[in-house]
Amino acid sequence: MGAAHALDALKVVLVAPRNPLNIGAAARAMSNFGVFELRLVNPYKVAFQEARSAVKAHQILENAKEFASVAEAVADCALVVGTTSLGPRALEHPLRRLEFGGKAIARKLAALQGQATGGGVALLFGSEKFGLSNEDMSHCHWLMRIPTREVHGSMNLGQAVAVCLYEIVRNPAAAKVAPEAKREATAEERERIAARLEEVLDRAGYVHTRTEGSTRMKIRRLIYRMRLNAHDAEVWLGMLRQILWKLDSRQ
Amino acid sequence: MGAAHALDALKVVLVAPRNPLNIGAAARAMSNFGVFELRLVNPYKVAFQEARSAVKAHQILENAKEFASVAEAVADCALVVGTTSLGPRALEHPLRRLEFGGKAIARKLAALQGQATGGGVALLFGSEKFGLSNEDMSHCHWLMRIPTREVHGSMNLGQAVAVCLYEIVRNPAAAKVAPEAKREATAEERERIAARLEEVLDRAGYVHTRTEGSTRMKIRRLIYRMRLNAHDAEVWLGMLRQILWKLDSRQ
Repeated sequence: MGAAHALDALKVVLVAPRNPLNIGAAARAMSNFGVFELRLVNPYKVAFQEARSAVKAHQILENAKEFASVAEAVADCALVVGTTSLGPRALEHPLRRLEFGGKAIARKLAALQGQATGGGVALLFGSEKFGLSNEDMSHCHWLMRIPTREVHGSMNLGQAVAVCLYEIVRNPAAAKVAPEAKREATAEERERIAARLEEVLDRAGYVHTRTEGSTRMKIRRLIYRMRLNAHDAEVWLGMLRQILWKLDSRQ
Repeated sequence: MGAAHALDALKVVLVAPRNPLNIGAAARAMSNFGVFELRLVNPYKVAFQEARSAVKAHQILENAKEFASVAEAVADCALVVGTTSLGPRALEHPLRRLEFGGKAIARKLAALQGQATGGGVALLFGSEKFGLSNEDMSHCHWLMRIPTREVHGSMNLGQAVAVCLYEIVRNPAAAKVAPEAKREATAEERERIAARLEEVLDRAGYVHTRTEGSTRMKIRRLIYRMRLNAHDAEVWLGMLRQILWKLDSRQ
């Protein structure tokens, strides 16, 4: 494989999908998350043809490969994972919740990337009505379950693909690098706002002489409790300056 | 709220959805993940009627409430989060990747659960074609982005709902958080402060007619970025009322 990107080794395999909208939706989610290899096992012919209209996912659908059996579809893969909505009791396979399964898949993809030769990771989704059969599952190393409610576990196919790919793609290490939004206002800036606000309230007759001391503290605490970035602090100061000017000009 | 389950406080808000399949898909994902309150702002009528056939999500669709504006749809919410496919450069709002935003929402839901009275968390999704408008976003405390590819960021609506709810639901750590000391100000309280501040600034000559529209949104965003508890909201309203009275009494 020697893939440029770890995700290049990931193959989404839809087993016997029947609804063109679902095939299209799966392809769209793949495009959203940067996974490009779609494989179809015995798709309902009409469905596959109609699916080709999915938003921005034409390429994925055009390049999709058809296979007659799960065995053939996953033949070149080093790891095969099936998805299911069933709880552990009904299954004879090792079952991982998506959070953990997704991590294991991501690790495997990263490991494969370093290798000169092959092996991909296949992620299998069953048909809308029946999910994966026991025969399909027998090709899987383990199964993965999205943590849905027990009373309504079965997800829409396109949504299940989206959620699984999101979990595999989201990379906590990369996410940590996300830039800080904006610098928080400094104590000095807060102090200036508090002082200006106090002046305004004084002119407006809000601050009574007798309770002046405690009012000042109340205002400061109020300003300190605000989550306030440096830019917003400037805006507040500008507004207060203008109000003060108006109050003074009318006396 | 005093909710039996933390997720009871979570409201999914679809703004101007047009496609019945997407409304149905959103409801289905909600049912999968145990989120039951769906709110629709100006849905395309036909779409809403046709959506009622979604698998196992009848109840959610039947109980869905319609609103004429975003303001009304989020009025009782202590936290309002918008979703977007845009990168940080295009936005004036704080932006969090879903991994972190989802955690923040889960923590908030856990905190709200301990409280006798109210406030929910609203999660906003824009229309299929245009996403959330600047006006819609001005009602949000912050925005959340699913880590999709830059060249194809825009997700299908139903899939975006599924991915966001999965991320919020999957996090068991959320439940560990202790309840907050004070109730956060609701969107309605923030709206009142924003309106009052706008009046004050208008009287003070800070708001110019030419830029009125954008100033209103700027003020709203400013107020939403503040961390503000219910008590402080009262204090702000009282101060603004007094300033307004003074400004008016001098004319």
